[in-house]
Amino acid sequence: MQHAKYSIGIDFGTESARTVLVRVEDGEEIATSTYQYPDGVIDEVLPGTNVRLEHDWALQNPKDYLEAIKYTVSQVLNISGVSSEEVIGIGIDFTSCTMLPIDKKGIPLCMRKEYRNNPHSWVKLWKHHAAQPEADRINEIARQRKENFLARYGGEISPEWFFPKSLQILNEAPEVYETADRLIEGADWIILQLTGKEMRNSCTAGYKAIWDPDTGFPSPNFFKAVEPRFRRVVEKKLSQKIYLLGSKAGGLTSYMAQLTGLREGTAVAVGNVDGHVSVPAATVTEAGKMVIIMGTSICHMMMDKNLHLIPGVCGVVKEGILPGYYGYEAGQPAGGDIFAWFTKNCVPKKYFDEADKIGVDVHRILEKKASSLKVGESGLLVLDWWNGNRSILMNSDLSGLLLGATLETKPEEIYRALIEAITFGTYKIINSFEKNGIEVEELYACGGLPKRNKLFMQIYADVIGRIIKIPASSQTSALGSAMFGAVAAGKESGGYVNVMEAAKRMAHLKKERFVPNEENHLLYQKIYAEYEKLHDYFGKGKNTVMRTLRKIRGRTKR
Amino acid sequence: MQHAKYSIGIDFGTESARTVLVRVEDGEEIATSTYQYPDGVIDEVLPGTNVRLEHDWALQNPKDYLEAIKYTVSQVLNISGVSSEEVIGIGIDFTSCTMLPIDKKGIPLCMRKEYRNNPHSWVKLWKHHAAQPEADRINEIARQRKENFLARYGGEISPEWFFPKSLQILNEAPEVYETADRLIEGADWIILQLTGKEMRNSCTAGYKAIWDPDTGFPSPNFFKAVEPRFRRVVEKKLSQKIYLLGSKAGGLTSYMAQLTGLREGTAVAVGNVDGHVSVPAATVTEAGKMVIIMGTSICHMMMDKNLHLIPGVCGVVKEGILPGYYGYEAGQPAGGDIFAWFTKNCVPKKYFDEADKIGVDVHRILEKKASSLKVGESGLLVLDWWNGNRSILMNSDLSGLLLGATLETKPEEIYRALIEAITFGTYKIINSFEKNGIEVEELYACGGLPKRNKLFMQIYADVIGRIIKIPASSQTSALGSAMFGAVAAGKESGGYVNVMEAAKRMAHLKKERFVPNEENHLLYQKIYAEYEKLHDYFGKGKNTVMRTLRKIRGRTKR
Repeated sequence: MQHAKYSIGIDFGTESARTVLVRVEDGEEIATSTYQYPDGVIDEVLPGTNVRLEHDWALQNPKDYLEAIKYTVSQVLNISGVSSEEVIGIGIDFTSCTMLPIDKKGIPLCMRKEYRNNPHSWVKLWKHHAAQPEADRINEIARQRKENFLARYGGEISPEWFFPKSLQILNEAPEVYETADRLIEGADWIILQLTGKEMRNSCTAGYKAIWDPDTGFPSPNFFKAVEPRFRRVVEKKLSQKIYLLGSKAGGLTSYMAQLTGLREGTAVAVGNVDGHVSVPAATVTEAGKMVIIMGTSICHMMMDKNLHLIPGVCGVVKEGILPGYYGYEAGQPAGGDIFAWFTKNCVPKKYFDEADKIGVDVHRILEKKASSLKVGESGLLVLDWWNGNRSILMNSDLSGLLLGATLETKPEEIYRALIEAITFGTYKIINSFEKNGIEVEELYACGGLPKRNKLFMQIYADVIGRIIKIPASSQTSALGSAMFGAVAAGKESGGYVNVMEAAKRMAHLKKERFVPNEENHLLYQKIYAEYEKLHDYFGKGKNTVMRTLRKIRGRTKR
Repeated sequence: MQHAKYSIGIDFGTESARTVLVRVEDGEEIATSTYQYPDGVIDEVLPGTNVRLEHDWALQNPKDYLEAIKYTVSQVLNISGVSSEEVIGIGIDFTSCTMLPIDKKGIPLCMRKEYRNNPHSWVKLWKHHAAQPEADRINEIARQRKENFLARYGGEISPEWFFPKSLQILNEAPEVYETADRLIEGADWIILQLTGKEMRNSCTAGYKAIWDPDTGFPSPNFFKAVEPRFRRVVEKKLSQKIYLLGSKAGGLTSYMAQLTGLREGTAVAVGNVDGHVSVPAATVTEAGKMVIIMGTSICHMMMDKNLHLIPGVCGVVKEGILPGYYGYEAGQPAGGDIFAWFTKNCVPKKYFDEADKIGVDVHRILEKKASSLKVGESGLLVLDWWNGNRSILMNSDLSGLLLGATLETKPEEIYRALIEAITFGTYKIINSFEKNGIEVEELYACGGLPKRNKLFMQIYADVIGRIIKIPASSQTSALGSAMFGAVAAGKESGGYVNVMEAAKRMAHLKKERFVPNEENHLLYQKIYAEYEKLHDYFGKGKNTVMRTLRKIRGRTKR
């Protein structure tokens, strides 16, 4: 019998990176390691400086990524006792669009002393929302010019994406734009570090940078119409060579081998996006099944043999998830983030005391109390727009709303209403898919949350009226990356010929599933009807108070 | 030189009673005493029973009132060293409409064992909001019959008022209704206890029980149309003898004299309402000056020589505040209550720690942090309807709304937005007065809050664009009651002939006043325009989500 083979997946998230070492033959997770980024999400002051950021900024420090690779890969090797010879491949996924300017040597400009104090030299995290004016401009010109690509992105280019963020750099820090040899996705920058080669992946290019395998990027004339200095952005700042998901990017450099304890030349897959890479790791390799990835934010992934243009679904990319399918991505830009905000800012001491007393997290206390509430008992209704709305409204100027508060309102009621709001938001997305020709037959919920919070899952099932299945792994992104690592290694090295084959062996489901309670579903239909009214009133231009308040707020710079 | 004379005022509030002993010649407050009601606001379980209350109920225990009299009057006498001979009068004021069923001997039915477990035998506090269906019925019939009285109450009888509450007793506990010899206002019940006589006051009768000095109560035919068994409610359950404010109710009984340490026969004024009694105590005895009483809830009192019918102003009563004027009352049913709710339910531990560290109340920390925010910086907008809306919408089904939340939102920002919402609500009321012929030239803010929270007062001035003056006493209700006590005693006993004379000597203003900042006022006008849009959208029937959610909630009985 042959020795077992292993693969490593690294999932670069918003607050931390998680790495998993898995057995290739069956996907068994042998060791995991998490590294909290020391600088986390930078949204107040640039580290090591006195530079304050404006509202809606969110940056990261690329140094944290390199530390994460070093720390977590060494650790999974140590924990597992697996030797570097037995590791056949490595894959990574990243939040997206998370992008940065780098110089010719691939060094991020923020690591160069002369740019350190300029916020635009740092990594713009996916949830950096300060490029709304640039997105508005790009959308306006695209509409004027009737650009075909708009329809593939739900009719709106999001301010979170690559070109609005790039244009913001050009507008506000032309010297940074000028100096940058490349503007690059975090995922691709990591691959550049691991392999020494710029191997841009088709997933981020397709979903975040308006690239299509048949037609490429938007034309220089389009970019010129947006802003003359932006005309040659693709030619000058990006590479036009794009590599499909499932490709091998190259072999690990000797420097990286030293840093991590892996073999030089270990197969590295091209980069991927955290949501997309989760789909096969959730066992899904066909149409009709929505994979919901619940992390800081929430992504909704679907596949279909055909192209449908769905309003508010933020991206459809040919083979953007798996070969042979159009990949659809929708999203809610705040998920776990809202609960982190809530417990940090809105939960009184006695809830923490109660949690301490029985040695659990405060979320468990809130969940327990919220579980004893009946549907509708709180009288609360929430719009989950704490971080804007991606699908189906694509407007980062929208903001959170809580309605129905009384002097009897309790924290667990608000907590439950926040959960309900997120499920209503997902329901709205599912309805948009179905109205436009893509049936959503089953739901798969990935992430740590589905395991930790059964109430959340039950509310999901009750609101949406469909069965929720849960992948066995609570780290589907990292597992999915490890699967792509095994595919990059190839069958000849003990890996797989493609990711569908990898999924058959490496991905599994839990036995537990969440089945809708019909009575609750009917009551939630009534509350959802009210949610929809508010959603459309505030989201579709009848009342633009959220944008107005944000404008007024924008004038009060920190 | 004569010995100084003194008067005592007792203000029965929502959570406590406050008593002040003042010098009659100049209003100097010699001693004060506060008594927290042991049973407080009863909104979950009937004390000493397992009986759970439904949503929207709010009761009190009348025993708490008697204890409050005993405790606080004895204490102010002890503290001051004033002898009972020197106390010439006593006055009281109460929240309203706060009402209870009593038997022939004046004993509250809830004090009788056989009724103790029936929630309807207890005191219904002003903020008991469970009589909305009864209010709806009363309003429907009044409109059908084109009853003239409706216009004096802004077109709506509030569910907080006397007849909806009485009808709820009849509907839900006919045996309590039947047994009750009287349904009586708390203020009048206290006077019955102090003097042994039922001496109903014109203020509660006028503002809360649809009584008018010229036309009396609504007709038996009106009540019959509402509900046949309700036909003789006035004749059977009320006294039709109503005594004007400023009258003497009688002399203190020997039992009460013993209980309090006062002289038997000490002059007792007829009862009054906390808001109304504050007006002369705030130095206001003429038209054009709005007195805002900021307590648990907020009342807005105005006087005018003429009768104006103002939509949403919840009561206009001839001589309802002072002789010679029509008295106008508007209100916001949650004021201090909202901040109590907020600090109890929504403020994290570190704010309390920070407060403890420097030995202040957590409100001071929130105020300090909120003070450093610029107008509009939070991006938040709130509708202050945590306890429904009294003016100008008169709908207790409305509920609180918070809009504009983001992942950056901080507790002090919500705190400030709550303050702003209350001032917007007041501004809306002022605008309604002015649109309907009553100019509001100056504002007087009474209560403890104006002294404690300068930020709140400055925001009031900035939002409304008028100067805010502050009475010298922070207990204007109790002081006002003491003034009426001195009037009940009469000039011959060292008191005053009327309350205008008393006000000239006994009421004073602080030197400090709050002047609007013009720049802030202009910016607030923009935010107020957004507030008005939301106010009208949710408050005037375009979107009835708040009522719908309350109905769904109502079905989920505790």
